[in-house]
Amino acid sequence: MKLCFIGNRGHNGYVLDGLKLLDDIEVVGITRSKNPDETKYLEEVVSDLKHSPSIYDDFEKMLEECQPDIVSVCGPLEDHAKHCIACIKRDIHVISEKTIALTINELNEIKETYQRHPVKLIAMMGLRFSSEFYTAKKLILKNKIGSIRLLNSQKSYRLGTRAEHFKQRNSSGGTIPWVGSHAIDLVYWLSGQEFKSVSAIHTTKENKSCKEMEMTALCQFSMTEDVFASVTMDYLRPQNANTHGDDRIRIMGTDGALEARDGKLFLINSEQNGESEIQLEHPPQMFCDFVASIKGENDQPVINTMDTFKVTEASLIARDAADEHIIKYID
Amino acid sequence: MKLCFIGNRGHNGYVLDGLKLLDDIEVVGITRSKNPDETKYLEEVVSDLKHSPSIYDDFEKMLEECQPDIVSVCGPLEDHAKHCIACIKRDIHVISEKTIALTINELNEIKETYQRHPVKLIAMMGLRFSSEFYTAKKLILKNKIGSIRLLNSQKSYRLGTRAEHFKQRNSSGGTIPWVGSHAIDLVYWLSGQEFKSVSAIHTTKENKSCKEMEMTALCQFSMTEDVFASVTMDYLRPQNANTHGDDRIRIMGTDGALEARDGKLFLINSEQNGESEIQLEHPPQMFCDFVASIKGENDQPVINTMDTFKVTEASLIARDAADEHIIKYID
Repeated sequence: MKLCFIGNRGHNGYVLDGLKLLDDIEVVGITRSKNPDETKYLEEVVSDLKHSPSIYDDFEKMLEECQPDIVSVCGPLEDHAKHCIACIKRDIHVISEKTIALTINELNEIKETYQRHPVKLIAMMGLRFSSEFYTAKKLILKNKIGSIRLLNSQKSYRLGTRAEHFKQRNSSGGTIPWVGSHAIDLVYWLSGQEFKSVSAIHTTKENKSCKEMEMTALCQFSMTEDVFASVTMDYLRPQNANTHGDDRIRIMGTDGALEARDGKLFLINSEQNGESEIQLEHPPQMFCDFVASIKGENDQPVINTMDTFKVTEASLIARDAADEHIIKYID
Repeated sequence: MKLCFIGNRGHNGYVLDGLKLLDDIEVVGITRSKNPDETKYLEEVVSDLKHSPSIYDDFEKMLEECQPDIVSVCGPLEDHAKHCIACIKRDIHVISEKTIALTINELNEIKETYQRHPVKLIAMMGLRFSSEFYTAKKLILKNKIGSIRLLNSQKSYRLGTRAEHFKQRNSSGGTIPWVGSHAIDLVYWLSGQEFKSVSAIHTTKENKSCKEMEMTALCQFSMTEDVFASVTMDYLRPQNANTHGDDRIRIMGTDGALEARDGKLFLINSEQNGESEIQLEHPPQMFCDFVASIKGENDQPVINTMDTFKVTEASLIARDAADEHIIKYID
């Protein structure tokens, strides 16, 4: 299958890591970023892997000439929707940096295009492919904690030096979509429920000159079956912490509890008292999982197109709820 | 000083524990519960401590005859406000099981009475007197984590066998006030901010025949200075867990983070990386701290009357926000 890249921001590494494991994918095109430094590393890696892609400045031209089967969309965040739609229209499968859209209008446009061109489209929801969360999902499917009733999900990052585009709403989407969507994705995936409503708050206060970037945010979701989920996110993780990120989830069920923290997983149920770590399973590689689903070799990919739409929608509506100071309902 | 008891529900143990340490408190009266079994243990303990209180069925009569300096209010939850007001009107200091009122109207009545009779009145907010939270407060006051920006607070209990009165809203106030008020209190105390607004959700779903009792609830507070706080509470802690309760708080500041969990405290700042437990300080005993404040020997009690009013108000408004499905503002 033929693969093209648009840009190289964010988590393109998922695609490159998968590419190293797959021998039937040929990289045929790369659309350079306006700042060519952004795509330079990508060109080098692809070249090291013995691919000889054509290099473009115009993604439309690349799509026309290369006729790829798959495109990795990692351009500017505000162009994700445009890039996704251009691919979908041509019946090209898409793996995109999240969020695939920065507004509900953009998302609806993607969905409408998708109705006419039902390709495979996923966002890079990396936490699903992280051992502790992946294993949690497996244990839930094995009914180890009964019916899930409550989830508390967390994303916390060191601030470090943020790229300029994260400091503007129109080029980042805001902290709830950019950071929180991972935690919102966990809640959606692990609960098995649909989002019904959300209340959220966010603030740029104490953001160390990061302009419009929100430093802290909270979301509170009501889901089907009266399952509840809280999501907390911040850029306040101290420099001296032992990891860059502190991603967690606590999942309370009718017959047990699961907690993922520090890359470890703990279970309390009739068999376990929560004091020892659960042996973690090895998740598939994201891009390999995606390619297998395209080939029809994998009818239960870890993340699918509907998940991507639902989580994007919930993330954008949560951000809007925070902006508007109202409880928002989710279809 | 003369002490009376009204009832013996809930956490009267705080008063009894303090009584054992104080030699200038005389127990002069006990108002029996309608179900005398509830107060039998209290009568025994008090008698073992060589007090000879008069026993009453009518609390008003007790207050008139005994003229106590302090009353411990631990009757039915729905009578807390009535009992508190009766004491305050007589200029008697009150230590009350929380919440001191089950409705905002009741709370306002207490406040109005208090305006005319400024006694000392505190609710039994036990977590402030628990070493890990007490030490967290000390570290915050020593500016170990900078300005606090975000707090995530948790209460989780085993369901066990709940007394009948917890299963009805009018005799419990609901899970947000009964259980959540502790976590709301931590947020208020540790942040040093005022509550501005709250969104909340709660549900009786999967409550194992506990009638009106909510099994899970979430609150999301916006506070002054755009400090945010999430509060999660549930009765889902598995039977097999190593403790009855799982009380936690995570506090993110501009220059560090504190986390209290499993009775331990962890700090990340420029000096600590969060991997080792912080040495805990010994908090004062709640009732002793209260008595010292009445005597004028303690002008900074761990909890005071204003705190009690603020936390009660926030808890009741949060519950109402959950009932009404709206964001509520807090004066």
